[in-house]
Amino acid sequence: MYYQVISQCTQSLKNLEGWLDRAQQHAAAKKFDVGVLLASRLAPDMKDFIYQVQSACDYVKAGAGWLSGQKPPKHEDNERTIHELRDRIRKTIAFAESVKEEQYAGAGERKISLPWAPGKVIRGEDYLPQMIIQNVYFHLAMAYAILRHNGVEIGKMDFLGPTSLVDA
Amino acid sequence: MYYQVISQCTQSLKNLEGWLDRAQQHAAAKKFDVGVLLASRLAPDMKDFIYQVQSACDYVKAGAGWLSGQKPPKHEDNERTIHELRDRIRKTIAFAESVKEEQYAGAGERKISLPWAPGKVIRGEDYLPQMIIQNVYFHLAMAYAILRHNGVEIGKMDFLGPTSLVDA
Repeated sequence: MYYQVISQCTQSLKNLEGWLDRAQQHAAAKKFDVGVLLASRLAPDMKDFIYQVQSACDYVKAGAGWLSGQKPPKHEDNERTIHELRDRIRKTIAFAESVKEEQYAGAGERKISLPWAPGKVIRGEDYLPQMIIQNVYFHLAMAYAILRHNGVEIGKMDFLGPTSLVDA
Repeated sequence: MYYQVISQCTQSLKNLEGWLDRAQQHAAAKKFDVGVLLASRLAPDMKDFIYQVQSACDYVKAGAGWLSGQKPPKHEDNERTIHELRDRIRKTIAFAESVKEEQYAGAGERKISLPWAPGKVIRGEDYLPQMIIQNVYFHLAMAYAILRHNGVEIGKMDFLGPTSLVDA
């Protein structure tokens, strides 16, 4: 299930690329700079869209890395344009997809350090639901909400992405 | 991992109960009816706070039920007050917590029907990441965003809830 969950998080980043297309279309149709959306936030003391994307990427990268016993690559938080954000998303997807299913063997027993909790660790079986799933979907949902609140034409199906239905 | 993920979703509903406390405090301090927050939405064509809570509850209930081979209980969507929303959350938690870890045995191979896809099913190993995780956290994050956008004093830690740290 570690592999399946990280794969879904990776798919969700691909869904996010589609929201960026819609954000660009919306800005073009309304004749404003898409950078306005990237700098938007839901409350004055919340983070902006760029940060939400960076954070979502960081947690996908951290999950794929630490749960497979690898130190995740470092990505600087220096994106300012939608093109740079797309690059950030794509290099995150590339890293997550480089991790094979068998590399998650024993993920539940791995002990993972958190930068804000010196001297403590969290076990992989807690890290996935508590840290990775919750943070990835929090930040993706905030990014979605910022666009949606600002009139970008995206809907719930764009959030969920494809569903693996089979014949009954 | 099925049990751990559903347990985390259940914990997230408990976190949501804490956001309702803050919503009530905020409404009392600002002298407005908390019902205003319950009817709030992030965009005119998005659903309101009450719906987001009902939906988050429904997906936790569905995950706990179908993945353990049980038909989940039916809960009518008739909540109008914050007290009724609390009851909805609590009966969802009670059902989810009634499912024991061993009841999720074989969850990945279960075939689950979706009301909008007649003649099709989804396997449990796809249902959990694609339908349950994504929908539970989408609706919880939208509920959080509605409150946060309206000035309720909640933060990221209130979204995440407790973390299972152990000594390194």
